[in-house]
Amino acid sequence: MTHKSLIEQLNWRYATKKMDPAKAVPQDKLDAIVEAIRMAPTSSGTQPFELLVVTNPDLRQKVCEAARGQAQIVEGSHLLVFAAWDNYTNERIDDVTRLLKEERGDLPMMDAYYSNLKANYVPRDAEVNYAHAARQAYIALGVALVAAAEQEVDSTPMEGFDSVEVDRILGLQARGLRSVVLMPLGYRDPQSDWLLPMKKVRKSRDAMVTEIG
Amino acid sequence: MTHKSLIEQLNWRYATKKMDPAKAVPQDKLDAIVEAIRMAPTSSGTQPFELLVVTNPDLRQKVCEAARGQAQIVEGSHLLVFAAWDNYTNERIDDVTRLLKEERGDLPMMDAYYSNLKANYVPRDAEVNYAHAARQAYIALGVALVAAAEQEVDSTPMEGFDSVEVDRILGLQARGLRSVVLMPLGYRDPQSDWLLPMKKVRKSRDAMVTEIG
Repeated sequence: MTHKSLIEQLNWRYATKKMDPAKAVPQDKLDAIVEAIRMAPTSSGTQPFELLVVTNPDLRQKVCEAARGQAQIVEGSHLLVFAAWDNYTNERIDDVTRLLKEERGDLPMMDAYYSNLKANYVPRDAEVNYAHAARQAYIALGVALVAAAEQEVDSTPMEGFDSVEVDRILGLQARGLRSVVLMPLGYRDPQSDWLLPMKKVRKSRDAMVTEIG
Repeated sequence: MTHKSLIEQLNWRYATKKMDPAKAVPQDKLDAIVEAIRMAPTSSGTQPFELLVVTNPDLRQKVCEAARGQAQIVEGSHLLVFAAWDNYTNERIDDVTRLLKEERGDLPMMDAYYSNLKANYVPRDAEVNYAHAARQAYIALGVALVAAAEQEVDSTPMEGFDSVEVDRILGLQARGLRSVVLMPLGYRDPQSDWLLPMKKVRKSRDAMVTEIG
């Protein structure tokens, strides 16, 4: 595969509004996108979210109804659901350190670091911790959008949904997870997508960037 | 330039702990990273954050002191500060629609969409709106981490800082901005970076991903 530059990928992608239900994302491309999400960096390496890959048509139809009927959820072939931890707990952070020890061996510095992390995070309000975990999922969302573009797979990042209802549909609450953001994957329907012919619009560098020398 | 795959880039990068103060990121590589941030997608295309590129040594020293002395801030050559809007306002959203109209022409659907957005966002608590804007900055952070890796520039995403103090140092409050996350750029010091020889650790796919077919 010849790789495009990141800028070329970012210019190729767009928030696809109309997907072609006849075209499915092949397994190898899905795997590459999932692998990029798995490798995305997170604060203190906690990876405080899980990923659901939903292909089941009935469940996707229900999620679609909880997302203002945004049809890419059912017209794409795969729905990615980023679901963040509802809280930081001692058990969850201990799982992180257990994995680090398995892979790197026992390191005193690491124990001290994560003990301190637990002391800071666990007493905080669950909403504060969830908000922090959700931000980490957004790093992975950014990486996933690039990964999809690299694979020339179309995608649509979506926030406009009833997260309580999506949690219910997917049984997330019992798993201590809360749905953060949706990302249907599929292929654009070039004849029917109103956004495709539109110019991509971004603020100018001058409007966005301040250099302080 | 031969492009690595995204997975190769994600495996190459790491949260650099020790940077070489003698090596500066060249302008063309900085420009490529900034351009990727500019092109990163955001909710409804609002791009509700600004980017500060700080090279000034005195200011970076002050930010370093407000960030638990994390030395990459001064040992790198550039400090990126992602600063989100402190609130959504009618003026800010009108600026978004003005730019869209300049680039795409007048579209009645667009006016209705952003009128609805204003009606939904503006009455909300400023903290809710800031939290939403900050998440968008995290999408760009994910993209920026990939962009730096593509350019073979080292970087360190950083949350552990006193954001009120950083806002004061950089005069952000008067601009209606709040610092969200820092990202020093530079080059690793391979002899002195304790993290570099460590294995990169991530949860297994099985531990992170649920497929619902």
